[in-house]
Amino acid sequence: MMNDLSGVKVLITGGLGMIGSTIVKILHNHKASITILDAQLEPYGFNLFNVKEIKNEIRNMHGDIRDYNIVKAAIEGQDVIFNLAGQVSHNDSLSNPILDAEINYLGHINVLEALKKTKQDSVVIHTGSRLQYGIIKSVPVSEVHPVKPLTPYAVNKSSAENVYSYYNRVHGIPCILFRISNPYGPRSQMKHNKYSMVNWFIRQAMENKTISIFGDGNQIRDFIYVEDLADGITRSAFEHKCYGRVFNIGSGKGTTFKKMVEEVVKTVGQGKIQHIPWPKDYLNIETGDYISDISSLKAAINWYPQTELVDGLKKTVEYYNKYKTHYW
Amino acid sequence: MMNDLSGVKVLITGGLGMIGSTIVKILHNHKASITILDAQLEPYGFNLFNVKEIKNEIRNMHGDIRDYNIVKAAIEGQDVIFNLAGQVSHNDSLSNPILDAEINYLGHINVLEALKKTKQDSVVIHTGSRLQYGIIKSVPVSEVHPVKPLTPYAVNKSSAENVYSYYNRVHGIPCILFRISNPYGPRSQMKHNKYSMVNWFIRQAMENKTISIFGDGNQIRDFIYVEDLADGITRSAFEHKCYGRVFNIGSGKGTTFKKMVEEVVKTVGQGKIQHIPWPKDYLNIETGDYISDISSLKAAINWYPQTELVDGLKKTVEYYNKYKTHYW
Repeated sequence: MMNDLSGVKVLITGGLGMIGSTIVKILHNHKASITILDAQLEPYGFNLFNVKEIKNEIRNMHGDIRDYNIVKAAIEGQDVIFNLAGQVSHNDSLSNPILDAEINYLGHINVLEALKKTKQDSVVIHTGSRLQYGIIKSVPVSEVHPVKPLTPYAVNKSSAENVYSYYNRVHGIPCILFRISNPYGPRSQMKHNKYSMVNWFIRQAMENKTISIFGDGNQIRDFIYVEDLADGITRSAFEHKCYGRVFNIGSGKGTTFKKMVEEVVKTVGQGKIQHIPWPKDYLNIETGDYISDISSLKAAINWYPQTELVDGLKKTVEYYNKYKTHYW
Repeated sequence: MMNDLSGVKVLITGGLGMIGSTIVKILHNHKASITILDAQLEPYGFNLFNVKEIKNEIRNMHGDIRDYNIVKAAIEGQDVIFNLAGQVSHNDSLSNPILDAEINYLGHINVLEALKKTKQDSVVIHTGSRLQYGIIKSVPVSEVHPVKPLTPYAVNKSSAENVYSYYNRVHGIPCILFRISNPYGPRSQMKHNKYSMVNWFIRQAMENKTISIFGDGNQIRDFIYVEDLADGITRSAFEHKCYGRVFNIGSGKGTTFKKMVEEVVKTVGQGKIQHIPWPKDYLNIETGDYISDISSLKAAINWYPQTELVDGLKKTVEYYNKYKTHYW
């Protein structure tokens, strides 16, 4: 239970990013003792504005999970580690697979090795991706769907997850392993289209630009509002029955790409839409329709997403209308 | 077809090790133009004696696949790359998972990136492991058995394989992906028990020491003689129908651990046997019985293992009796 987390020490790596800072906000509301470790790397999602309101009440370490000594210092004495630090661009993993592996895989081994060597049994949360499944056989996708990652990003997320499982099984480190669908919402970077597709479309609509849809736009995705996502992740960390388990997390609902874009344009009140052919590079790595089966997590922690896409988009657009200067 | 490989340029990374040097020997017999790239790292399996007889007829580069620039120089103009370089100790991957990832995963990305960037479509062969499957559901194990690697070594072998598949699918690099059972035979290192279990037992028997069997010794393994293994791997490289495919390679026969040890003692003519309890560390990562289903490779290249365990052991013992000073 996480009603009152006074005295509970938590580390959030990547805590200045969209998901990380949303988790920080929840933990702060519950009075946890918070440390952020963030490498503040361009072009990823860190933004000091994401934690500005509470900056004097948290410890903010500037450091990279690729550096074992920094990781070792950061994990010391932590009860829970939300390991959100990541190379978050799927496309960048294609052009720089080594960098992706170093951050999204080796960096996580650093955290696990530091825990093992210091004999510390902090709860550790990994945020993997629905992309780990590769080509989808049928929706909704439960955790037992075959895992056949298609790209370096998906391979590295899957490798990290497997290594967490190893440290859990052999070294007794309690781990919770999420596979996230497509998140969107406040606090995401808005400077480029390398990731957070929905957010990028919101920016394009806000600037009355044309949003491109590949093909007919009937491909189905599962878009989850970041506050619902962060709520599920955060609460799992305080439920013993989640330790050692893999959970899909998403809205549990399928929305066509076309419908999502139409809702973005409608919510923003401007923006244009065009359909373009699928680029060959994308077709080669397209997984097919995806919807999360979220029944495992629901059953484990009585969690369910509370925000419909239209409401999530509305809140997101309001946020960026208000704080645009900090994200553009 | 590989009757005459005159003019065919081949690179064998890890070409000074047991499997690599056996492949080198076969390719040399078929008149290929051979380059070896080997990091000559202790405590792994390199031994210059393995290629001594033909050393003036091959190019021997001293270099590490972790070094992109060396890899780029080595792959230039090669028609086929047998990528055997590896951290080969399963146990060492547990104590140093980062090193294992750097050699067995990132090193392979270097080879693939170098091919991609130089727009070179060499055939590349990866030698993964039966450990990629994790806990075995039923034997014999075909290539469609679920892949759930249990340890860093197995995770990294699996990651490398997945990344090869990606470069094959998206960048058109022809790759052949093997999952090897337990190899043994001439040219393996004999200095420590970190890998090549059968070979280590041969040494213990040759020194009239006591060989320890975990538990009752009824666990089943698939032991493949290295010359059969190298024959299958080498021939696959010259069959187009193998490109882009995953193949199990092994003897296709199951032998209990106890039976294998008894055969070692019988073949050597001395050595003692004792049964000891399974160490806890081993039980946690034990996969259960394993036998390769080798029908895919048989069908593709009309290959089958020709050496029964008793004969392979006999040849191996003869080899080390003759060349002991070069391996002890």
